[in-house]
Amino acid sequence: MHTRTVFFVSDGTGITAETFGNAILAQFELLPRRVRLPFTDTADKAHQVVRQINHTAELEGSKPIVFTTLVNMEVLKVIQQGCKGMLLDMFGTFVHPLEQEFGMKSHHRVGRFSDISRSKEYTDRIEAINFSLAHDDGQSHRDLAGADVILVGVSRSGKTPTTLYLAMQHGLKAANYPLIPEDFERRQLPPALIPYKKKIFGLTISPERLSEIRSERRPGSKYASMENCRMEVNEAEAMMRRSGIRWLSTTTKSIEEIATTILQELQPERLVY
Amino acid sequence: MHTRTVFFVSDGTGITAETFGNAILAQFELLPRRVRLPFTDTADKAHQVVRQINHTAELEGSKPIVFTTLVNMEVLKVIQQGCKGMLLDMFGTFVHPLEQEFGMKSHHRVGRFSDISRSKEYTDRIEAINFSLAHDDGQSHRDLAGADVILVGVSRSGKTPTTLYLAMQHGLKAANYPLIPEDFERRQLPPALIPYKKKIFGLTISPERLSEIRSERRPGSKYASMENCRMEVNEAEAMMRRSGIRWLSTTTKSIEEIATTILQELQPERLVY
Repeated sequence: MHTRTVFFVSDGTGITAETFGNAILAQFELLPRRVRLPFTDTADKAHQVVRQINHTAELEGSKPIVFTTLVNMEVLKVIQQGCKGMLLDMFGTFVHPLEQEFGMKSHHRVGRFSDISRSKEYTDRIEAINFSLAHDDGQSHRDLAGADVILVGVSRSGKTPTTLYLAMQHGLKAANYPLIPEDFERRQLPPALIPYKKKIFGLTISPERLSEIRSERRPGSKYASMENCRMEVNEAEAMMRRSGIRWLSTTTKSIEEIATTILQELQPERLVY
Repeated sequence: MHTRTVFFVSDGTGITAETFGNAILAQFELLPRRVRLPFTDTADKAHQVVRQINHTAELEGSKPIVFTTLVNMEVLKVIQQGCKGMLLDMFGTFVHPLEQEFGMKSHHRVGRFSDISRSKEYTDRIEAINFSLAHDDGQSHRDLAGADVILVGVSRSGKTPTTLYLAMQHGLKAANYPLIPEDFERRQLPPALIPYKKKIFGLTISPERLSEIRSERRPGSKYASMENCRMEVNEAEAMMRRSGIRWLSTTTKSIEEIATTILQELQPERLVY
């Protein structure tokens, strides 16, 4: 049973409040109930939010935690005045000292995602997602010159989720190519990739973990066998070493850690935050 | 030219520091240079970070802004003591009051993404990404019973990026189906979807914007023409109304706003944060 409720209140999507709030909550050994209250952008909605929070406070007999990223001062005031939760005003806390340091007022504009659907940054991001989908798993050699990153590695080493993350989060055009027995026989990276060596990054994985992952899809297959996985990983790592490309092992890493390391290593020029 | 440099310093990936820091910076009319310093997890690395920040401070003649999400106190102390930037300690600021309120110590564990690569939450998320890719653009009718969300809409209304975002960010298995002339003639949703009506959400878009987007891909085509776009959008909206499914217009909305609205409306049971 949860013992606390945590509210994320925002006048936008609430994604910032959630990302940050969850990172902070991860520092504690507790399993709170989490409630999103996005698009809280009028005083009326703020009064509803206050009622909901106070109702929870009464039911649970403890203060709900309320993470807010409100920029609308009217909305924030309603919540500050009426709410019986513990209010953590994430914007106010940092925006005010920055106003001092910058010598300028903040403009209290809602949401980093609002009104951006037609911005250059946003359309680049959508284009990057489309590019990455079209270049998943070596599907296409077209426009590789336009790629920001090209991932290589054996099947199921984590290439697809990583390329999609790079596209979605950072607006990078990320292609990915499987390394297959043909490449191992030729002892070379796939020929189409050779001209773009600077953009290539390799992913590897422990044979044990690979066999586990492949077995979920195709139990008992040669593809998933330890012997075959060990051979493929050995060959792939030898090839990456020979080619002088950078690579890492994904065995114990999350998509976010893999992506962050790739950005650090390749330093792609075009990087949309 | 930028007039300020903003550093994001983290002992993990720095994604939380960036997400939050960028949301705060978006409140100001300035275009700072942004520098990521992830994986700052030893005192040695912290000293390097201090040197880099102080060097920038001297060069630019103004205080760099330093967003930190450090949980390693040794690292944080090095930066607090040596750094000439304006330090915004995002964790400390909120973790301490929460320790009081919860009556427990935080465990100073690095990164919400660390060590999770084999957790249930993480493998569910990877599975959701694979599911969403396999069910992109109506590719497969298999396992639709396992989908958390099924998006429908005309081609290029925003279904693919939204399903991938729902999978990546929220661990939801999200399928998407295009509405095509056959469906319009039959005046019904694609038959395979009928049993899952509760999970269906529709996306629409203004014919003008749709024609613009399609023209980038296939300029001068019937597919992209205003007349055809107007017809398809009219038919699709009429069908969504008739079917009684929920829907929204993506014309001026970002992926994040669309996804947040879908979550609010469908309230899927399984939701990985």
